[in-house]
Amino acid sequence: MSLISQLNKRYATKKFDPNKTVSEATFENLLEAIRLSASSYGLQAYKVLVVEDKAIRQKLREAAWGQTQITDASHLLVFAIQKNFNEADVDKFVEIVANVRGMEASALSGYADMMKGSFKRPVAEIRNWLTKQAYIALGFGLVAAAELDVDACPMEGFSTDQFDEILGLDAKGLSSVVVLTVGYRAEDDGYQHLAKVRRSKDELFERI
Amino acid sequence: MSLISQLNKRYATKKFDPNKTVSEATFENLLEAIRLSASSYGLQAYKVLVVEDKAIRQKLREAAWGQTQITDASHLLVFAIQKNFNEADVDKFVEIVANVRGMEASALSGYADMMKGSFKRPVAEIRNWLTKQAYIALGFGLVAAAELDVDACPMEGFSTDQFDEILGLDAKGLSSVVVLTVGYRAEDDGYQHLAKVRRSKDELFERI
Repeated sequence: MSLISQLNKRYATKKFDPNKTVSEATFENLLEAIRLSASSYGLQAYKVLVVEDKAIRQKLREAAWGQTQITDASHLLVFAIQKNFNEADVDKFVEIVANVRGMEASALSGYADMMKGSFKRPVAEIRNWLTKQAYIALGFGLVAAAELDVDACPMEGFSTDQFDEILGLDAKGLSSVVVLTVGYRAEDDGYQHLAKVRRSKDELFERI
Repeated sequence: MSLISQLNKRYATKKFDPNKTVSEATFENLLEAIRLSASSYGLQAYKVLVVEDKAIRQKLREAAWGQTQITDASHLLVFAIQKNFNEADVDKFVEIVANVRGMEASALSGYADMMKGSFKRPVAEIRNWLTKQAYIALGFGLVAAAELDVDACPMEGFSTDQFDEILGLDAKGLSSVVVLTVGYRAEDDGYQHLAKVRRSKDELFERI
């Protein structure tokens, strides 16, 4: 299966070639895969910032332990949850669903109530939940990048507070949760030659 | 791009055909994609339980609001984090890395110390972090299922406490976090005919 060989080829790229750019057509495919990601109730209560401004990327790099992927990758994606997503946002979502499916929003009131139930809990729990949804999208992005023969590095090693400040996310009601850098590996990124380490099937899976 | 059309075809299957089984070869490809998932430091601090026992699946269904996917899908996967993953587990992981890459574990002591630093925080935070890694693997599984033309439904609507008890996870140091059911849609699953709802590109992505 070609997907498996693509997944075997991929690795967390430590050093990108700063002179290589992912074509717009390929990048659009990557974004589309992320857009099509599954999420709880389909809410997609997050945004993906595509940071192109070089000066901003330099600042972000400083807020990410100086990791060069932040500036040298072709594209930098910052996944950010909607940190105050609430029942009113559920209503807006239900309107979209009703509109796409040619129904009355009122016909979806049971569905809306069920979703709203998930928002009746401490805000920290809600944010954890929404963050997990962003990680599913990250997974979609990583697999899509592999399929597209684009190198990628998922990154958690950054200051969310500093990222939020540099990107002005607070004012937008957003909070950064994880980063995906995509581009093409540098020829001298030694990590590409290391054998992939994964748990064995027997260790990872258990049949009951 | 074929991946995009596959992702457009997929949907959270509400009703599986209980008489259709995913072939072992296809299922092995799905597991392999999950096994190849990215995770923080490559730790993969989770297990995936493949539940085949019908009586157990019936009990799990009761602990999941009676949702029929739990019993009727061809295969049921329960992702469970290693809830007490600690510095000793990091050492074991480093041994695996050293072994695969033909190095001495001592040569990786800096790497080991960095990883161990991530475990010096409250256990609830660690568990949230490891749970997010399992969600990346869930994303890999969902995309792989789509590529393999297998239907799937990711599921959060279950009692983790009851799942842990039914599966005896506590004694194994595991805690269930999310479920993936895979199989083939029932002909009368009405959800397959609904238009897919996703945020528009303009709403989901922002270029800075």
